[in-house]
Amino acid sequence: MSVRFFNCRILTMLDDKIINGELWTDNDRISYVGPSVASPDRSFDREIDCKGNLLMPGLKNAHTHSAMTFSRSLADEYCLNDWLHKAIFPREAKLTPEAVYWFSKLAYAEYLAGGVTACFDMYFHKEENTKAAVETGFRHVFCGAANDFGGFEDLERFYNELNSFDPLVSFIYGFHAEYTTCEDNLKYMSELAHKYSAPVFAHISETKEEVEGCKERYGVTPAVLFDRLGIYDFGGGGFHCVWFNDEDRKIFKDKGLWSVFNACSNLKLASGIAPVYKFVKDGMNIAIGTDGAGSNNSLSMFREMYLDTVLSNVETHNAAAIDPFTILKAGTTGGALCMGLKDSDVLSAGKKADIVMIDMNKPSMQPENNISRNIIYSADNSVVKMTMIDGKILYEDGRYTTIDIDEVIRESNKLMKGLSDI
Amino acid sequence: MSVRFFNCRILTMLDDKIINGELWTDNDRISYVGPSVASPDRSFDREIDCKGNLLMPGLKNAHTHSAMTFSRSLADEYCLNDWLHKAIFPREAKLTPEAVYWFSKLAYAEYLAGGVTACFDMYFHKEENTKAAVETGFRHVFCGAANDFGGFEDLERFYNELNSFDPLVSFIYGFHAEYTTCEDNLKYMSELAHKYSAPVFAHISETKEEVEGCKERYGVTPAVLFDRLGIYDFGGGGFHCVWFNDEDRKIFKDKGLWSVFNACSNLKLASGIAPVYKFVKDGMNIAIGTDGAGSNNSLSMFREMYLDTVLSNVETHNAAAIDPFTILKAGTTGGALCMGLKDSDVLSAGKKADIVMIDMNKPSMQPENNISRNIIYSADNSVVKMTMIDGKILYEDGRYTTIDIDEVIRESNKLMKGLSDI
Repeated sequence: MSVRFFNCRILTMLDDKIINGELWTDNDRISYVGPSVASPDRSFDREIDCKGNLLMPGLKNAHTHSAMTFSRSLADEYCLNDWLHKAIFPREAKLTPEAVYWFSKLAYAEYLAGGVTACFDMYFHKEENTKAAVETGFRHVFCGAANDFGGFEDLERFYNELNSFDPLVSFIYGFHAEYTTCEDNLKYMSELAHKYSAPVFAHISETKEEVEGCKERYGVTPAVLFDRLGIYDFGGGGFHCVWFNDEDRKIFKDKGLWSVFNACSNLKLASGIAPVYKFVKDGMNIAIGTDGAGSNNSLSMFREMYLDTVLSNVETHNAAAIDPFTILKAGTTGGALCMGLKDSDVLSAGKKADIVMIDMNKPSMQPENNISRNIIYSADNSVVKMTMIDGKILYEDGRYTTIDIDEVIRESNKLMKGLSDI
Repeated sequence: MSVRFFNCRILTMLDDKIINGELWTDNDRISYVGPSVASPDRSFDREIDCKGNLLMPGLKNAHTHSAMTFSRSLADEYCLNDWLHKAIFPREAKLTPEAVYWFSKLAYAEYLAGGVTACFDMYFHKEENTKAAVETGFRHVFCGAANDFGGFEDLERFYNELNSFDPLVSFIYGFHAEYTTCEDNLKYMSELAHKYSAPVFAHISETKEEVEGCKERYGVTPAVLFDRLGIYDFGGGGFHCVWFNDEDRKIFKDKGLWSVFNACSNLKLASGIAPVYKFVKDGMNIAIGTDGAGSNNSLSMFREMYLDTVLSNVETHNAAAIDPFTILKAGTTGGALCMGLKDSDVLSAGKKADIVMIDMNKPSMQPENNISRNIIYSADNSVVKMTMIDGKILYEDGRYTTIDIDEVIRESNKLMKGLSDI
């Protein structure tokens, strides 16, 4: 499959410039990005007149639990602890592989409609999830989700199997969090990291209580603990990072670890506001995720990027606390590099064709005083005109090419009936 | 024009129930809301099979400066003071009536795409703005924007002229704010309120500095000052209300005044976070607005409603700080009553046909664990399938019936060139 996009504007994310020209794809890769070509001396399977719309790298959802779409707006009158123990855990215990398949497809539909071309996902029933990803054509990076209740026994197998199964699917080592993982299991995690020279990710410093608990148990913060145990010797990072102190940030900075922010979830669950501006000021590696649909409740990366920017303003009492372009980088190239997708970071020849087209005819994208700022400050899913992954158009003008959305919605609501009797 | 919507779900906002059935409109009014009718014994100009999609009252943007779309993403690397004095005021001085016409149309396009059926607007060049509203078919409530630089001389004329010009247009007394309005002008405002037994609105307690300045000048907060001067003797309210203290809230509560929140603008300009949960707990009259596109930068009511809910969570460290339905009421019926649109508040026979259709086939609206919570927590403009004002469908499936969006975009960008040489 080859596609020629012409009459487009292109934000490659190599820098903040927007170029006028065209972009070609051949199979899963970009084959040309540059000025307009009057009459290309080759043919394409499809030629798309973009009429001035903008191409940019797909957004990367760098922390999510995709199949948790089942829990959207479910019993969220509960506070976190009751919500988990009364609403979520009993239902997760009944969540079949088939349910994970359908609820993951529902999430993919939402990702595609929101310009998201890859997710970094922590959940279970990975086989059925993989099936859903490959059928959809979605780029799915699994993160290990082991904790003391299970998962460590499968980590190494998943690492080997899922990293050689399909080009769309990969696996990165991870465990749930310090507060659900004993020291022996943490040490085992470190052993695996060393055995494979592999990065490791986990939830980290999401709530104040989590950090205080870790200090009581070990006398140090989770970041210091993981670092001392050698878990981070080959890279990786953490999700949330709301309650990082200066020492935590220094460890992450010195080791080039990734901090993945989840502003919406942290607001909704009343966990706090991550001081994103401090990470930016220190020039750290940052990425952005939505967390699961139960605690967000959408899977919109636009809302996340907006909040990472403006929450930094209100926290610092400075309306120019962060350059919004830094956040757009975190949501695109940062996420890609964090998830090990080194070929999905920018738009240039040779890179993967993971591309979003932004509809510049939407009023929220006008006037064009500053297009990339319009994306951070004003965009939502309604501005996404097309989403391409691995060179295939999966979403265009509100229609899916690989997902039967009616079927997904029907099956999802049918499955909810089996989850209502808790 | 008569329309029959059938096979729909209806959130009337009379309560939080969602009914299955149908809704009819005749001219500008709703003529029937109730159970399905197998074969109505009358004809309609149009019958729409809603296929299970949801009808609800239009969102009401209860504080905005519509024509400020010109300032979207414009020089927002400046902090507030520089932004106003270096970027905004010099351009507003050059803003022609024609520019207000086109930039208001751009705002209407965004409102319609976001399910907004009325705005409470503070700006100038009201004649051209009125022309844009009537041509579009948009319900536009002007708020007086007088301050010491001008506007008081025209207030009474606008009140009389704009309230009898067109059913879509109305005018409510208002002035900019305490810090731009001397005591004599405030007293004149009070005189007008008393002369016409009319409500009055103003920006109030938006920033900490504003409240401190007022205390220095008068020894009291703006709310106390306005109340003492009799400005609020016939109702009204204020925009922002970020720095209200207990006494301010008591005045607003006792007099039934409206507090209009603008979360996005307050975050972006680093003004602070309004303690919305306190107003809700006190059972006060609340509404929601976007403020202008220069300080938001979108005109999405969904983002505002989401933030009013989750910011209350994080501020109180309580994930159940506010019942989201309270915020949905503020964004619909609250806004309508605040703006004097007593017939646009709910969906029932006899009320104005100001209606939004929510597309339940969007993945962010699924599964249907709680539809009204999905709207608060997960919706954005992409879920708006249709917007009707005064019985006329103005937006449907991404297309406008009264706005030539290409022309609006072309004219807006052309006008920006005249505003670039500052």
